Amino acid sequence: MPYELYYWPSIQGRGEFVRLALEEAGAPYVDIWREGSMRDVDFGEHPSFAPPYLKDGKKIIGQTANILLYLGEKHGLHPKSEAGRLWTHQIQLTIADLVVEAHDTHHPLGGDFYYEDQKPESLRRAKLFRESRIPKFLDWFETILARNPKGDGFLVGARVSTADLSLFQVVEGLSYAFPKAMKRAAAKVPRVVALRDRVAARPRIKAYLKSERRIPFNEDGIFRRYPELDG
Amino acid sequence: MPYELYYWPSIQGRGEFVRLALEEAGAPYVDIWREGSMRDVDFGEHPSFAPPYLKDGKKIIGQTANILLYLGEKHGLHPKSEAGRLWTHQIQLTIADLVVEAHDTHHPLGGDFYYEDQKPESLRRAKLFRESRIPKFLDWFETILARNPKGDGFLVGARVSTADLSLFQVVEGLSYAFPKAMKRAAAKVPRVVALRDRVAARPRIKAYLKSERRIPFNEDGIFRRYPELDG
Repeated sequence: MPYELYYWPSIQGRGEFVRLALEEAGAPYVDIWREGSMRDVDFGEHPSFAPPYLKDGKKIIGQTANILLYLGEKHGLHPKSEAGRLWTHQIQLTIADLVVEAHDTHHPLGGDFYYEDQKPESLRRAKLFRESRIPKFLDWFETILARNPKGDGFLVGARVSTADLSLFQVVEGLSYAFPKAMKRAAAKVPRVVALRDRVAARPRIKAYLKSERRIPFNEDGIFRRYPELDG
Repeated sequence: MPYELYYWPSIQGRGEFVRLALEEAGAPYVDIWREGSMRDVDFGEHPSFAPPYLKDGKKIIGQTANILLYLGEKHGLHPKSEAGRLWTHQIQLTIADLVVEAHDTHHPLGGDFYYEDQKPESLRRAKLFRESRIPKFLDWFETILARNPKGDGFLVGARVSTADLSLFQVVEGLSYAFPKAMKRAAAKVPRVVALRDRVAARPRIKAYLKSERRIPFNEDGIFRRYPELDG
């Protein structure tokens, strides 16, 4: 039985981190809300607070990083050792923090106001994000790659993990939303850039990115190209 | 060898979720930065992006929810089944999302500006948080308790988990920061209120809350009492 992914049909958003893991695993899945109907799961005892959530037979799992923990273990996209799994998940949760901050550049006052109603606030928050937060996060990833005892090919150990796929997505997203800031920042993190390229070249990811299953970035998602926020 | 917890010494903050788990487990730990020195760990291959982090022998684990995943499994504060563990972690990650939003009520433009420099923005964001987000999150917890097949004594199964301890902390924090809004909201979630009381009455938690190890809430932490933000 294929997995069922429930996520907004018109954006990459948080669902994209799950899609990338499913694609890399070669796991059959149905992207339910992209199939034309917005039917929902019957949550029973385990309601999700928000999409994405993933149905695997009778199991329903919510929270992006939690879904990746599940898929990572099941499809060999996480290390087998406890220490390796915890470390991968730690990176994954830090990526989740970065994603919240990226979102908040255009919604510092919360999701219930339109961007147009919080533009001056967005300008202030985005400046800080560009100048201080992006470099700090990227430097952290660069350090992890540099210190990986198995080499700088992947974030954890010698094999691809969900964290690598997610970092690829973050670099893509930041490059879309903040092309100028990212050009400057990327020059200082060659290992991160090389990892992005390495993930993009993986056969299944490459095929996915070319397919119609990959929704283009747009201004409804997390990573939005508002030139004024790029300084 | 006792655990070593590394977290800011003058606030509850995110470290408090870890402290509560350690206290409930009766696990020996040293709250390193409260001991008078700000010595840091030698991270080696596993640098943490930010405190809290926990040292257990040679292991260093970062990200609050990840630390709780580790402690939960080790000290029987998570269910043993895979489904139960994932569900507990899903709740934990949703609590983490709520904590970010609570923090952002006084720092909508980010952590590099003082509250005083983002007060009008805080007023707008806090209104949304009080009127829309607090009720939505609390209602979700209430639903989980109501649907727990083992009864509404705990969030997951029939035993206390890290998620219960963390929900206690969130209710305490919100009640400190938004006493008026929480009084209204609490009236609609009797199971959540009862859980808060149940956790507070647990012998080890009760002793902890009375001890000097419990740092009082204050206006440097996540939950701050700024009356103007309580409407």
